[in-house]
Amino acid sequence: MNKTTRSERIAMILLMLSQQPNKLHTLTEFADRFGCAKSTLSEDMAALKKVLAANGLGRIETVPGAAGGVKFLMGGPAGANVACVQAVCEKLSDPARILPGGYLYTVDLFSDPSCIRKLGEIFAAQYYGAEPDVVVTVESKGVPIGLMTAQALGCSLVVARRDNRVTEGSVVTLNYLSTSSKRLQTMSLSRRAVHEGQKALIVDDFVKGGGTVGAICNMMKEFAVTVVGVCSLVATPQAAAQRRLRDFRTLMVLEGIDEENEKISIHPADWLENSK
Amino acid sequence: MNKTTRSERIAMILLMLSQQPNKLHTLTEFADRFGCAKSTLSEDMAALKKVLAANGLGRIETVPGAAGGVKFLMGGPAGANVACVQAVCEKLSDPARILPGGYLYTVDLFSDPSCIRKLGEIFAAQYYGAEPDVVVTVESKGVPIGLMTAQALGCSLVVARRDNRVTEGSVVTLNYLSTSSKRLQTMSLSRRAVHEGQKALIVDDFVKGGGTVGAICNMMKEFAVTVVGVCSLVATPQAAAQRRLRDFRTLMVLEGIDEENEKISIHPADWLENSK
Repeated sequence: MNKTTRSERIAMILLMLSQQPNKLHTLTEFADRFGCAKSTLSEDMAALKKVLAANGLGRIETVPGAAGGVKFLMGGPAGANVACVQAVCEKLSDPARILPGGYLYTVDLFSDPSCIRKLGEIFAAQYYGAEPDVVVTVESKGVPIGLMTAQALGCSLVVARRDNRVTEGSVVTLNYLSTSSKRLQTMSLSRRAVHEGQKALIVDDFVKGGGTVGAICNMMKEFAVTVVGVCSLVATPQAAAQRRLRDFRTLMVLEGIDEENEKISIHPADWLENSK
Repeated sequence: MNKTTRSERIAMILLMLSQQPNKLHTLTEFADRFGCAKSTLSEDMAALKKVLAANGLGRIETVPGAAGGVKFLMGGPAGANVACVQAVCEKLSDPARILPGGYLYTVDLFSDPSCIRKLGEIFAAQYYGAEPDVVVTVESKGVPIGLMTAQALGCSLVVARRDNRVTEGSVVTLNYLSTSSKRLQTMSLSRRAVHEGQKALIVDDFVKGGGTVGAICNMMKEFAVTVVGVCSLVATPQAAAQRRLRDFRTLMVLEGIDEENEKISIHPADWLENSK
């Protein structure tokens, strides 16, 4: 086997880092793999940091000290984030998406990795500093965006169920009033899913009245888990404005659906202009 | 802004390719971005192909012709695939995972991006040639592995529901007999979800009797969609051996759970030894 050249080594290091976002890699790991000195690797990291910054495609963070290393973090310029969310809003504004009863057909886009991967990365970039241990969502439409956010944060996903399953073991069950449908709903979470003292980021696809995400927050209290933030792909203006949810961020605000005139009004949320 | 060096350019190209697996990028796209000749980029691709092959971390494929370009495909040596699945089997063999009734607690691992991302890439690598348009799964435990497989294939995910939802629009509903529980089950799929003539890869987390994945196959027939394969994370030996399912692949075979002696017998499937 030929010796790896500098450019080949740098490319492989970036690939390995980017495939496990927010995971710490030691320089020793790369030194052993590519047979080079740590000082050489430090130069490689400097080059990668520079070119990532120039292209707005995430960044590499150096953690100093004996237990240190390097890790890849998602995130881009605010302008790119707004443009990305704006493009999704435009797709969602297609009148063919209006369903009987004034609902919006979103599942195709919100299950499409090429769409929601980037959206999950935007969420993740806002919460690296809060260091969540888990992303929590409720089945089943929250699962794709929850998983993508968890992937970008390098943490695991926990899914609260709408019914009890034998495959979950013993569960904690919570009844709550859905603020939008005014109906009593049930949510269950396996007792094995989260642990006391952990930090959770709540992620859902759509927040209308806030009943469901509020119930997840209450469920976290039952498990003595701290909620570091609540994220939603789409929210109503009422939900977006409310202060009851801790650190609530929605990517899109759905102002309304005019069934008669076949018009959907949806736009990127204001905070994106100052996003990471 | 300084000019990008060769190593920085190669690293960025690999990052862009790997973040959108199976998506065709033209050399013109990179030539414009980095201000270099296409002949230079061809040399870059040759270097990347060489180092990816040496490290077993996916590959770059060149598509010739006017509509051609380059794309990144997942997949590693069979030995690495077996080792990866073996590591998951070992985690699943922990007796603490046995639930009352002889069930196995798997949701934590099967919702953990760091675990299932790689497993989805193994599935994807087997089906690039079949060119599926969509990955189809059934809610809700199949969603994470379905999404990761779809991401690696560069296609979208379609989720069949266990109940009707107003947010799905008009749906096709199918009743079927669950071979394991002997109970009548219902599955619904939005009429907008898939289109006549498409090709689908079916992905689920656990196949016991094959009733559910068989029902998804029947659902695809209703939509005139061709099933190119059926994948499952875990299957019983009976399911793994049956020929009724077209091109069925499970990563792990669950031989049995001995509740009394607290022993779980699970191992990687044989086909992995010849996997891509």
